[in-house]
Amino acid sequence: MKVAVLGYGTVGVGVYEMLVSAKGLECGPVLVRPGKEDKAFKVSSLDAITSDPEVGAVAEVMGGIEPAFSYACQVIKAGKHFVTSNKALVAAKGVELNRLARENKVAFLFSAACGGAVPFLHNLALARESDEILSLGGILNGTTNYMLDAMQRLGLDYGDVLADAQRLGYAEADPTADVSGMDALRKIMLADAVAYGKLPKDGLLNEGIESITAADVAHFQSRGYTCRLLVSGGKNSDGSVCAYVEPVLFRSGAPECSVLENYNMAKYEGKNSGRIVLMGQGAGRYPTASAVLRDLSGILRGERYMFEEDCEEAAANNAEIQHCYYVRLPAAFASSVPSESAETSGEVCRLISKALSVKEMHALAKELREKGAKVFFAAIGE
Amino acid sequence: MKVAVLGYGTVGVGVYEMLVSAKGLECGPVLVRPGKEDKAFKVSSLDAITSDPEVGAVAEVMGGIEPAFSYACQVIKAGKHFVTSNKALVAAKGVELNRLARENKVAFLFSAACGGAVPFLHNLALARESDEILSLGGILNGTTNYMLDAMQRLGLDYGDVLADAQRLGYAEADPTADVSGMDALRKIMLADAVAYGKLPKDGLLNEGIESITAADVAHFQSRGYTCRLLVSGGKNSDGSVCAYVEPVLFRSGAPECSVLENYNMAKYEGKNSGRIVLMGQGAGRYPTASAVLRDLSGILRGERYMFEEDCEEAAANNAEIQHCYYVRLPAAFASSVPSESAETSGEVCRLISKALSVKEMHALAKELREKGAKVFFAAIGE
Repeated sequence: MKVAVLGYGTVGVGVYEMLVSAKGLECGPVLVRPGKEDKAFKVSSLDAITSDPEVGAVAEVMGGIEPAFSYACQVIKAGKHFVTSNKALVAAKGVELNRLARENKVAFLFSAACGGAVPFLHNLALARESDEILSLGGILNGTTNYMLDAMQRLGLDYGDVLADAQRLGYAEADPTADVSGMDALRKIMLADAVAYGKLPKDGLLNEGIESITAADVAHFQSRGYTCRLLVSGGKNSDGSVCAYVEPVLFRSGAPECSVLENYNMAKYEGKNSGRIVLMGQGAGRYPTASAVLRDLSGILRGERYMFEEDCEEAAANNAEIQHCYYVRLPAAFASSVPSESAETSGEVCRLISKALSVKEMHALAKELREKGAKVFFAAIGE
Repeated sequence: MKVAVLGYGTVGVGVYEMLVSAKGLECGPVLVRPGKEDKAFKVSSLDAITSDPEVGAVAEVMGGIEPAFSYACQVIKAGKHFVTSNKALVAAKGVELNRLARENKVAFLFSAACGGAVPFLHNLALARESDEILSLGGILNGTTNYMLDAMQRLGLDYGDVLADAQRLGYAEADPTADVSGMDALRKIMLADAVAYGKLPKDGLLNEGIESITAADVAHFQSRGYTCRLLVSGGKNSDGSVCAYVEPVLFRSGAPECSVLENYNMAKYEGKNSGRIVLMGQGAGRYPTASAVLRDLSGILRGERYMFEEDCEEAAANNAEIQHCYYVRLPAAFASSVPSESAETSGEVCRLISKALSVKEMHALAKELREKGAKVFFAAIGE
């Protein structure tokens, strides 16, 4: 099957190189910006791809919602299988693309959009067919994992590790999408949609790592905990899905603690399979390209869709899941959080909250911050 | 698709129960021993299954090579897809069954035979299509992992943890297949065959955990190491495959150290994907059944084979891979092992060997044991 590639940036180059040696796949034209067609295989018009009867599949690795979405629609309507690494596209337009792909009887796969090389969505889509997925989530942002790991292992402060991550190319010049948890949140939207047929668009909650300090990390470490930015999904008792991102403290020995540097880890719990944990590189040229290629090989084996036919947009409900939280806040505000225990040192209070729903804790932090309090919180993991 | 089940033991019951709610699958007849047909869905003649035109696939969960192999041949020749959890069958007859299934254009899948609920072989088969698998392996025997974990965390001796494992149903009355590494070795034979098209039958090496003592474990632990029984495969520079089992010492923080109790962990390293780690329950009714069901759902999506068309039997070559080894042996024999460092305490010597090939180390231990020396060895992990 001849495969066209949309975009020739970091991932596009990797996809093109891997296509050369992949079984049953061949390199087709690569879409680049006008003026960048410096090789015979590069084209600047999508028509050259949609009108080529030899092109069986198109891999979109441009990123962003437009023009990726328009291109996706044209490619699918032209009867080409569509594979993408673009989480923003699938989070925003996945339900529509799933419908369009099914109408046109072409594949719509996006392994690389969630977890990079970690084969998460593919296995989730297969497992849901015969098992009940009780919960899912993981460490799905390599940038923040790199930062938290460096803070813990090297004892550095937030600003220093962010600068390091930027220097190493792990973090963008504007790191907001990563450090706020937004990037990880988009990935869990896809996983919820794969597992439950509901793509959550409203009611999502994300607490990132912007508020963590070296003192917080030292405090966790001295008590045997490791902090990770965890993204969580799952199904509530009323059939709605939950979807949120927040720092979580894990006891040493938990698989999350062995996720070092910029690695990712995805997990799900099946009613029958039990807990399944998957780890690997969440980003980078070849890891991401390897996920795109796995989807293309999957098409050759008959794989077509990750979303079920009736997958729909929905609202997340984060009021059901409860955790006890570690909360660090100014001592003057400590009474605002119902606590099991608290330690005050000077003007800073570190407390363990009573069990609070995710929604309650995130609302409480927002309220305290609106009053000017500097707050960091993290759920206490199992 | 209606699915017949061969065997109604621990896993068979789980498969039957899961078929009731799996999408696109239906329960068919279940083969039991004559005299055990106490329900309408149980039959004691394979003919009732092979002659039933509604049966599209057969799941074999009886174990053992015969009559499973004869049944498999009859089922495949009758045009039914064949799924099995039987590692002994696939290790002994996999190449032949792959050929027969392809001739008859039916599927031959066996996820549950390696890693239980851990989706190892399926992902390996998909990854090899576009990536070069550099190495593979993992912790694929839950019994020995339970024992090693209990020795380390509870400080118990070998005999006590074996008795515990037997009491909990993790170990058989005759635990030889598990503690000798033979069970894990069969699993890596399958993984090598999936990744490289070579099913190694000769030259396999297995060192189990029968020689480990509480003193060895205390020694590792005091130096920050955790011992796991690791099974390893991979491709040598001459194109042959390696396949061996041996205890390995991992530095705390390695993912292997977070594999507790009777869990399994599989890993592979792709040239492009990087290292992928997969963890989950390696055995038990529902975890194993969940892997059988994933294969059946895979058939509905077009999945057919885990082995490539030209998969063949081969000899393993374990002379290329080298490790430094921890070796505990009688002080009188210490000079037999080329060492980097050694500590002698009374009549016991604990040394770190110079780099030795797997083949050399296993041969050396065999030689020493033939001379009456009590020896334990473990490779030093990365």
